Order: sequence, then C-alpha cells, then structure tokens
Amino acid sequence: MDGDAEKVRTKRRSGGRSGNARRGGPSLAQGPWAIPVNTDRPTEPLSEDGVRAIHEGAMRVLEEVGIDFLNGEAREVLKRAGCAVTETRVRMGRDFVMEKLRDAPASFTITPRNPDRAITIGEGRMVFGNVSSPPNCSDLDRGRRPGDRASYQDLLKLTQAFNCIHFAGGYPVEPVDIHASIRHLDCLFDKLTLTDKVAHAYCLGPERVEDVMEMVRIAAGLTHEQFDAQPRMYTNINSSSPLKHDWPMLDGAMRLARRGQPVVVTPFTLAGAMAPVTLAGAVTQAVAEALAGIALLQEIRPGLGVAIGSFTTNVDMKSGAPAFGTPEYIRATQMTGQMARFYGLPLRASNACAANTPDAQAAWESAFSLWACVSAGVNMVYHAAGWLEGGLCASYEKFVMDCETLQQISRYMAGVSATPEDVAVDAIAEVGPTGHFFGTGHTQARYETAFYAPFLSDWRNYESWAEGGAVTATERANGLWKKILAEYEAPPMDEAVREALAAFVARRKEEGGAPTDF
Amino acid sequence: MDGDAEKVRTKRRSGGRSGNARRGGPSLAQGPWAIPVNTDRPTEPLSEDGVRAIHEGAMRVLEEVGIDFLNGEAREVLKRAGCAVTETRVRMGRDFVMEKLRDAPASFTITPRNPDRAITIGEGRMVFGNVSSPPNCSDLDRGRRPGDRASYQDLLKLTQAFNCIHFAGGYPVEPVDIHASIRHLDCLFDKLTLTDKVAHAYCLGPERVEDVMEMVRIAAGLTHEQFDAQPRMYTNINSSSPLKHDWPMLDGAMRLARRGQPVVVTPFTLAGAMAPVTLAGAVTQAVAEALAGIALLQEIRPGLGVAIGSFTTNVDMKSGAPAFGTPEYIRATQMTGQMARFYGLPLRASNACAANTPDAQAAWESAFSLWACVSAGVNMVYHAAGWLEGGLCASYEKFVMDCETLQQISRYMAGVSATPEDVAVDAIAEVGPTGHFFGTGHTQARYETAFYAPFLSDWRNYESWAEGGAVTATERANGLWKKILAEYEAPPMDEAVREALAAFVARRKEEGGAPTDF
Repeated sequence: MDGDAEKVRTKRRSGGRSGNARRGGPSLAQGPWAIPVNTDRPTEPLSEDGVRAIHEGAMRVLEEVGIDFLNGEAREVLKRAGCAVTETRVRMGRDFVMEKLRDAPASFTITPRNPDRAITIGEGRMVFGNVSSPPNCSDLDRGRRPGDRASYQDLLKLTQAFNCIHFAGGYPVEPVDIHASIRHLDCLFDKLTLTDKVAHAYCLGPERVEDVMEMVRIAAGLTHEQFDAQPRMYTNINSSSPLKHDWPMLDGAMRLARRGQPVVVTPFTLAGAMAPVTLAGAVTQAVAEALAGIALLQEIRPGLGVAIGSFTTNVDMKSGAPAFGTPEYIRATQMTGQMARFYGLPLRASNACAANTPDAQAAWESAFSLWACVSAGVNMVYHAAGWLEGGLCASYEKFVMDCETLQQISRYMAGVSATPEDVAVDAIAEVGPTGHFFGTGHTQARYETAFYAPFLSDWRNYESWAEGGAVTATERANGLWKKILAEYEAPPMDEAVREALAAFVARRKEEGGAPTDF
Repeated sequence: MDGDAEKVRTKRRSGGRSGNARRGGPSLAQGPWAIPVNTDRPTEPLSEDGVRAIHEGAMRVLEEVGIDFLNGEAREVLKRAGCAVTETRVRMGRDFVMEKLRDAPASFTITPRNPDRAITIGEGRMVFGNVSSPPNCSDLDRGRRPGDRASYQDLLKLTQAFNCIHFAGGYPVEPVDIHASIRHLDCLFDKLTLTDKVAHAYCLGPERVEDVMEMVRIAAGLTHEQFDAQPRMYTNINSSSPLKHDWPMLDGAMRLARRGQPVVVTPFTLAGAMAPVTLAGAVTQAVAEALAGIALLQEIRPGLGVAIGSFTTNVDMKSGAPAFGTPEYIRATQMTGQMARFYGLPLRASNACAANTPDAQAAWESAFSLWACVSAGVNMVYHAAGWLEGGLCASYEKFVMDCETLQQISRYMAGVSATPEDVAVDAIAEVGPTGHFFGTGHTQARYETAFYAPFLSDWRNYESWAEGGAVTATERANGLWKKILAEYEAPPMDEAVREALAAFVARRKEEGGAPTDF
C-alpha cells in the first residue's frame, strides 16, 4: 500500500481550513503550528530533602572537586571572577555559582528568520526539535546507510513540513559526502533555505561558529546590531563527562554568549559509565557540570538565555550500551526537572530510544521518553522526531511516527474544560436511557473539533484494515514521508537574501572553509 | 529500588534462587511477583470547581433523569431504600447516594486459592490483569482466528507465567468451540487449574454466576462460610450506556454482593456515541451510571468492595470506531481518577489500543494508555496485556510486549533515593575528570541491581542486532511466548481439590450446564 488511510482522510478533509495544512502538503492532515503549554503539575520523585541533598552534592563537587575547563580563555574569565584555578581545574564557590544563576532568565525567546516561528524556552512551554547528529539514516526502501546531503535535505524538509516540529536542531543526519571544511556552509544554506525555523550552531571551532552566526544573520536580513539585540539561534554544548568542558564547546558557547545567543548545557551522564551508577549521583554530577558552564556564560554575558540539558540515563551493564526510555531515564529526567526548577532554569531533554529499527520497541521506548518529558516539565525536547539506535541513526519512518505522537501530546496539553455546557446534563437528559448521542445538537455542534484526529494511526476495524492491505504503522509512515517530500514547498525567502547567503557560502568556500585539524 | 532488578537478573546470573523465576520458565528473566505502589502525585486536569461541577452534574442526572434498572429485584431494593421508581426508571437523591458511598471501602483485598497471590485494590497499589473477552486471537504464525479452548489455555498460561500479571480477569479469549451452556465450566476449570491468581466471574445469568462462585470456593478448599467471609474473586459489570443497567449484569452483581465478593462497575461511555461528545459530559454520565450501581450494591451489602471503572474515550467521528490511548482517553482517565478520589473509591481503567496488529501503533497507543493509568492513579489495570483491535483480538505477541512495559512501570514505581551514598560525592571525587565509573567500588557494589533489565528489549548496537538476524520486537515476542508455553508448569493444586473441581464440572455438564437463551 502506500497509505490508504491517509488517502481516505485526505479526501475527506480536502477543501480543509488551513494554510498550515497546505504548507505540509495536502497528504498531511496535521494540526496548525502551535506551541504546547504544559499545565500538568510535574511529577517529583525527590522529596524537598532530596533536592537539597543533590544541590548540596553539586555544590561540593564544584567547590571541592572542581571542573576541568580545557580552554584558557574560559579559565581566565573564571579566575578574574574569583574562582580557584589550578592548571586546567576550576573550583567555584557556591556563592559565585548562585549569584550567576540569579542572572540567568527563567525563559527566553528565540526568533528565527520567520518571526511567526519564534519559540519561547520556558514559561511552561514545550517545544520539539528534529533528531540531531546521527551519522546514519535509514528508510524501509533503501535500508541503513551513512548520511549524505540528499538525506540531510530530505530530513530538513520533514522538519519544515511538520507543524509539531518547532525548531531545526542539529543536522538531522551528518552529510558525510560533504567535505568537513565546508560542510557547515552547505548544511546551513540548506537549513536556512529549506526551513524557516530556529536554527542551531555546532561548536566545532571558531570559524564554523562565526560562519553560522553570520549566515543566520544574513538569512534573517538583520544588521549585526539587530542580530546581537535578541536571540536568533542557539547552540547546545555537552560536557565531556565526568567533570570536563572541552575547548571547542567552550569556545563556541562563549562566542554565542558574547552576541546574546542562547546556550543549552547538556552533560551526557550515563549512570555507571561517565557518572555514578546511582541516579541521584548521576544527576548530582550532571547538575555540577551544567551549572559550571552556565556560571561561566553568565559571567561573560549576564542575563544570557541558558538551559540545563538532561541526558542522564542508564547503561546496559552487560554491554555498556546506553538505554533510553527506561524507568531510570524517566526518573532521572524528572529529578533533573526538579533541580532545574530549584535553580530557575529552563530544561531540555530528549525523545530517545535504543531500538535498532522503527518497530514496537522504538515506539514504546519513545513513548516512555515523551512521558518523561511531559511529567518532568521539559521545555525543549531534542531529538523529538526521527531518532533510532541511541542516536546513531535517523529513520525517515520513525520521524513520521514520532510526529504522530508529538501531535497527540500537543493535543493532550490543551487540557480539559468543565463548564455547564461541557458537563452537558441537558444533553444527557435529552438522550435519556434509550437513545444515542450522534445526532444531538450538543454533539453536532462540536464533533468536528471535539477529538484529536491522527494523520498516521489507523482506527478502522480489522476487516477494513486487512482489505486495505494490512499495512503496519511503519509502512504507512513510509508512504507518508514520500508524499510529504513530493509535495514539499520551501518557505518563502527574499531572492536578494538567498543570493547574499549563496554569495557568503561561495566566498567562504573560496577561502577554504574551516580548518579540519581541530 | 533493588529487589526487582536483582531477581530480574537472577536468572541470567545462575540457575537462580527463585521459584518465581522458575515458574515463568528459564527463558523468561523476569522480576518477582510484587504489587507496584504508585507514589506519584496524580495528574489532575480538573480544577476543584471542575470536580464539583461534574459531581453536581452526576447528582442531577441521578435525581432528575434517573437510571434504567432492567431488573425488578434491583428496583425493589432501591424502592425500599426510598428511591423514586417509575416503571424501569430509578431516580435516587444525592443524600442516599452519598450515604451509600460512605459505606464503600477505599480499598479491599481479594485472596485467591494461592494466598500469596492476594491483591489489594486501592491504597495506591496498581495491579495488572490479562486481556479479557476478545472473540478473536492472533499470533504471527497462525494469524487471526476465532478463539478456541487451546488458545484460551495458552493465554491463561501466559497470564500465570508473567509475574507482572496480578489477576486473571475475564477469558483472555472467548473459546467459541465450547458450547455456551458449558463454556463457563470448562473455562473456570482451566483458569483455576492453570493459574492460581484472582479469578473473575462473568455476569451471564444466575446459573453461571453461581457455578463460578462454587468453583472458586472448591478450588480454594473453602467452606461456604469461609468463602463468604472475605473477597475471593470479583466481577465487573458494564452499564449499558446511556443510563441503563441490564438484567444479567445486575443479577450477577447482586449475587456476588450478597456473598461479599467485590464488584467493579464500569460504564462504557464512548464520548459522542453513548455519552456526550464533551469529556466532562461523558465522565459525568459515567460517574452517574457507576454510582447508581454502587449505591445499589452498598444497599444490599454495606461495606462491599467496589470500584469505579473508567472506560471513557472518544470515537473516530468518521467511522464511529472507538479510539484508545488518545489524548482524550488519557484526560478522561485522569478526570475519572479525580472523581474516584472525591468519592473515596478505587479506580479501574485499561491498557487499550485501537491498532489491528502488534506494531508501533499498538505500542504507542498502549504506552499512552499505561501513562493514563499511572498519571490517573488507577488501582486496577484491566486488559493490561494482550489487547488489540479495541478489544476484538487477543494477540500472543502483544501479550509479551505489554508485559515488558508493565515490568518497566513496576520498576518505575520503585521510586528514587537520595541518601549521601546515592548522591555519591565521594565516588565523583574519586573518579575526577579523567576516569570512568565502571571500575569504582561504588559502581561494583551496585551495578547488578542498579538498573531495570528488560526481557524483551534488544539494546545491542545495530551491527550485533543485524548480525543476530535483525529481529523486531514483535518477532522476538513470538519466540518468547513459544518458549514460555513450552516450559509452562501448572501451579500446584491438591489432587483431591482437582478431583472435586472436575466432579463438579462433570455433574453440572450432566445437568445440562446453563441455559443459553438469556
């Protein structure tokens, strides 16, 4: 098949209401662009004492053990601010850290070239980004293969097409057919022309970071002053756990910070490997690593938009492989959420799984990861669509399946209402014990919008489904991404801006791009 | 937080100590029998005013609209208690209803023939039961087919083998190859000999209900007085929404009530079909229907163990087919949870999905249904393993996959700890910024039990997984159920008891079983 159910639904909805739907192509009967607001009270597995214990532990790690900052400039900044620096090790007092945290805002807004795609990180909002950085990609037709530019572009088109994807994070797959010296130029050109959503810079050396900032500026038609005046893009840095911030990450983060561009600091603390085997210990270490980076950035640029990233999970103690969507992943994310609120910081986590193929395991692991994000009060969900294999592969089908669940989460976030019209005693009385509600005025006035309508789930009965070819969800997703790509239309961009962007890329290529010996 | 994983790994480490593990067969490296306790604060989408509005609405429905009780005996009881009875319609005042609710206990314990398998419904506990009542079953080898006794027995064996399944609910598939007049006799014989978990009676006429109670009594070796003295089994009745309780359901529920056996009252309120299209309206109606039944039962047997069942979900407004695991399902379950706590009643819901095959859609829909149950504070999860097609099919593979996620939920429920040893500042200091945690004493002392170990998830890297045949989760589940069935051992039963049970079945068959013209 390719997507009988989708065809049927498309037909039913043709003539439908929205430019939004059309933007994703007529085959994708999706909801409009909207930022979900999470009104659920977060799940808090730690007692108040537990939060204090982790805080106290993190402060002791920062004061007594210290963090290696493998960047002289960063150490200089921290030394001048009064931190104790011994070789690469920096020890910072809790007074300094807490003072810097007071400068960090509880939320910030990033505005990309299309201001309608601005996203606020914090304030209970929850934004979703595409899978980032896998070296491989896969689909049912071509199997698994190293990433290339064509696949990179495909996945960016999916990123743009789905309204439930709010930001274009890192490269949805690494296009290894582009030479590393110029890859960032082609990649950002593609990202900034194929999408109009918030973009990200990898911290892979000064030239790349400066190039990306410049390209984001050009794409939005901004002066340097306008670019510097508010967040236009962001980066994510990972500490090199345990207790280490590497040179390029710090260099890039500081470059963005000086221009007022937000930084997410995400320790990659696998419990039992790069962090203590206990969740409380792993979270303690993650908090110490994140706060160390955030304190540096606030010292450089007070008030900079920053977020703490949670990537604490367990490893399979037999193989050392990381596991995702596990009970430990959910609890660690919730615990980090408690700490983020304790420090008044926005929170990032991920829609991750360990499965090797977009099957039922991928679905339950991702659903549990999303549950972790919702219940933890996560503000920024990385890898929200397309992630497989613990991040080593971007799956086209998984991208589509994840977007189905993301849309459901968005609808879930809309909450409930219990006005007298909702409670509907009159309708219940009208129907009584013998009728049904299909034909009542109460139903007729509401049925078109009362319930979430999926674009991928097949809710037909077994007989209809079997007659339609017994197509699985993964196969339906395969049919759908092809239609979306076939119908993809790039978001509008001023021709002069596109030319300026292309000229920048051409000039920088002529100059040799970026050094590759970093 | 340790016990579970420890036993989970027992099997892998050695021939292992536990009868529990062995009972599930050596191929199933599962956790021990244990009842999860949900310590998460429930998610409450309704404000206090919202709860009051639904309560007020339900009371008005009971007082002004009334409920049809299609059972003269039930109407007599209610009339004697002061309710207004007009033909089949019964209107009950809120004072009466609330007084009856004061008699209903917040929790109750059901003790089956093996007292180690006793389950408490309420007190924050969460128990899981097998899929119940589908007419069809399926597996990857034989496809989809009508249920028969052999499949019924297979699914009971899975029910028994998995420690995460706490009760044997309704028939896991309807064995249509047994004549309806004697089906309950063979089915209960199988259930009571192949499992030692809490059993259930269908309310399908007086003879069946009495036979089942008698068989449960015989299987447990109890006198009539002992049977009557405490809950030994239970039933579930569904109102015939809107606003109707049918004769056999009421008759069976009253028979159990008189003997002190618990009753779950579960309205099947599909919003937009048998209930208002608004979730608040559908929950209001469900609450009214459930409380009407519960009030009757408390009038008959004050203090009887009862629970309110949530089965409110949306329909696909295009086809009328029920949907499950949807945003509406999650919210309706949470809302009913708020109402159950308002009335001080235990709560039942389900691990349901609409998917037609055990694929990714089945997995995400079920994961969302489980999320509904956890976040709503559900005490009794019906259909927790094996359900497909909105309840029309029991899938062998889905049964195994569901048990993997149920085990994960159980482990999740163990919560977290933040003692100084957990926070692990010393271990972090010992490793510092250059080492790793694999070899530390802190890790070595804990790694065997620190994390949940799955029996079905494949966490190997892609290359190992591909070399191993690229087997999907559904295919692995297929392999696993065959091993479990091959290694199945029936729980011990005294030979005299078995003979008494067989003699009862033989006698009742000679007498012609139960009438089939109900």
